[in-house]
Amino acid sequence: MDHSGILFALLYVFVAAQIGAEVAQRLKLPSVVGEIAAGILIGPSILGLVSVAPEMGGHANSTAEPLLMLSEVGAVLLLFSVGLETRLGDLRKVGSSAFQVGVIGLIVPFILGALWAHFSGHDTPRSLFIAAAFVATSAGITARVLSELGVLGRIESRVILGAAVIDDILAMLLLGVVGSLGKAGGVSVGNLIFSLVAALLFVGIVAVGGGRIMREQSAVLDAPISPHSPLILSLVACLGFAALGSKIGLAPIIGSFLAGMAMAETPHREHLEKRIQVIMAFITPFFFVVTGMQIELAQLASWGSVGTLIFITFLAAIGKIVGGGFGARALGAKSALIVGVGMVPRGEVGIIVATLGLQQGVFDQEVYALIIAMSLLTSIIAPPILKMQFANIQKEESKAGEESALHAVESTGHG
Amino acid sequence: MDHSGILFALLYVFVAAQIGAEVAQRLKLPSVVGEIAAGILIGPSILGLVSVAPEMGGHANSTAEPLLMLSEVGAVLLLFSVGLETRLGDLRKVGSSAFQVGVIGLIVPFILGALWAHFSGHDTPRSLFIAAAFVATSAGITARVLSELGVLGRIESRVILGAAVIDDILAMLLLGVVGSLGKAGGVSVGNLIFSLVAALLFVGIVAVGGGRIMREQSAVLDAPISPHSPLILSLVACLGFAALGSKIGLAPIIGSFLAGMAMAETPHREHLEKRIQVIMAFITPFFFVVTGMQIELAQLASWGSVGTLIFITFLAAIGKIVGGGFGARALGAKSALIVGVGMVPRGEVGIIVATLGLQQGVFDQEVYALIIAMSLLTSIIAPPILKMQFANIQKEESKAGEESALHAVESTGHG
Repeated sequence: MDHSGILFALLYVFVAAQIGAEVAQRLKLPSVVGEIAAGILIGPSILGLVSVAPEMGGHANSTAEPLLMLSEVGAVLLLFSVGLETRLGDLRKVGSSAFQVGVIGLIVPFILGALWAHFSGHDTPRSLFIAAAFVATSAGITARVLSELGVLGRIESRVILGAAVIDDILAMLLLGVVGSLGKAGGVSVGNLIFSLVAALLFVGIVAVGGGRIMREQSAVLDAPISPHSPLILSLVACLGFAALGSKIGLAPIIGSFLAGMAMAETPHREHLEKRIQVIMAFITPFFFVVTGMQIELAQLASWGSVGTLIFITFLAAIGKIVGGGFGARALGAKSALIVGVGMVPRGEVGIIVATLGLQQGVFDQEVYALIIAMSLLTSIIAPPILKMQFANIQKEESKAGEESALHAVESTGHG
Repeated sequence: MDHSGILFALLYVFVAAQIGAEVAQRLKLPSVVGEIAAGILIGPSILGLVSVAPEMGGHANSTAEPLLMLSEVGAVLLLFSVGLETRLGDLRKVGSSAFQVGVIGLIVPFILGALWAHFSGHDTPRSLFIAAAFVATSAGITARVLSELGVLGRIESRVILGAAVIDDILAMLLLGVVGSLGKAGGVSVGNLIFSLVAALLFVGIVAVGGGRIMREQSAVLDAPISPHSPLILSLVACLGFAALGSKIGLAPIIGSFLAGMAMAETPHREHLEKRIQVIMAFITPFFFVVTGMQIELAQLASWGSVGTLIFITFLAAIGKIVGGGFGARALGAKSALIVGVGMVPRGEVGIIVATLGLQQGVFDQEVYALIIAMSLLTSIIAPPILKMQFANIQKEESKAGEESALHAVESTGHG
């Protein structure tokens, strides 16, 4: 293999990520935004230093598969670490809200997307395919923002992450239906039911069963001789359930999220969290930069395209804010709005749907570029808003806390 | 990309590495041996679960490049961590021995290899090419064994690692000469001198200059906002110098080793060591398993081949033990023998030479398989011997220490 080629590609991506993150943080933006922007900059659209396209300059691009793999593993580790901070008991408390956010937050953008595609003159199969790209939330991007803001323990975050899992299961089924519309023979109801049952069984067994096993048998993590053994067995679980999950059609990150939740039940939780953070510092930047690299700005270099892009991004955002927010109405207006915004980033899920549409010949290059750009734009817009919202709600809460403390002091004074 | 395919490949390799390491350690062998053996087992030779061949079962193998990249990065990180434990001042003390070990330990196996190839009926260019595969030590495998035994601080280890760097520079030059013998136009003396000067400048600038900058300006590592910043900047240096080194024709691991040495001069050294160990726990197993995967047992399935393999492995080992040991004679007989054995593993360097020979059409499949098998066999045989040697010498030293303490007590008693 070409040693220096791949090493330079890794170096460019890693350095770009760090500079992007640093600049974003100095501008008080979440670092994700800087990392995605760095990807757009070094990718084929602008500098062309690195690419994940199968060909680059007329030659086979041997750096594509390694970078895509690191990006995938980066997302898998990220969701594993989020799972580590998610207790099953906590998630149960938000189960009803999360379910409503997931379902309504999927239906509203789907309808909006389908209507737009229909009135733009696309035929029914293509319209439904486009609509499918409007629905799924990128748990990866939102999770990183929530983690960076230090709010993973808040109820809004739990609802968002729970809803993202439900969202992904439903989106997978939806894609199954829509994807088969274009093909001869149509949808097989049997296959769909099978997928749904497999997905539900997988989620139940890993999260609930795995959690119970880990609570009772966590000593097993210390059995191997290796000084890194709890970490190593956790990485096995993380990779293993990601692979199994994707085998039954779920996103790999769902499997690793569930594996992380199971590990959260062990006494090793904090030990693991620290170590996974270190590995993520090396690998997860590849996920965000590669996400940014996949946009082709040239496809969008006309006022018409820019207008369309802004419009569908608006539709995609408003669909989640209204649908997700309505689903979370039980939390109160402000928290419901946070949940809605938290569901906005499409990130890699939108990209996967767009890629599938291109491969099946349903999308042309322009629709493809539009949907990828929309997925990225939602991922860039939502994090700063989310950051402001959390800052506001926390300020209000601490104010309310101080006031009630003041009241307490006053009443003590009067007493 | 095929999510579940690549994730399962990663899972197989990672799990095989852990099981191999565990079994080896329970048998009191260095874990490296178990990891390489695990690679042979899951590779195309036996189970065929994973492969780094460009094709697998008639299809393009999309897991090959990602696995080769992880293997490469694993070796790069490993040598970076070894560099972190190597102080320039310590290495200077062993400079003369290391230089002799490197040079004589290269000449003796080269002559033995060339003689064997010549008397086996190969023509001169091919004989010299085969001889070139006999010379270079795998710093990666030896370094891991030394690190696992906790003897990186000993003088023998420093001589071995210093010699391995010198070895690699010379081997690169040798390969330049030998590789050009087969081509029209012959060797360009100018190119060779340019390579040598570039290599020496690189080593000097990174190790000495980098070390000085890091001693004086280590505050720069804390400048970025990211909580992981000293680690992240170190990873940038590690990847960056590995890439630069390979750009000028050195093995990437030499660049990362030098970067590690520069970082060893900062007060962050221990902080970095702990974190790099965690990242290595995830990535470095890929290096050893992929090394094992590259052997094709079928090519060696005759008594004649096995006999030849044993003979050339013996030649390759004895060449390093005699040549390296003679170079280290100043350390005393036992330590010199340790250094000689420490230089035996050929590992990935032999594999690289063999691959180059195959690509240039100098080697046929059998010579290729023989040289790869020899490289692996030396890498499997040397570590257990090294382990025994270090155990013996440490036992003797502690005995000698006790006796002198006893003498001291006795003389106090008499006084």
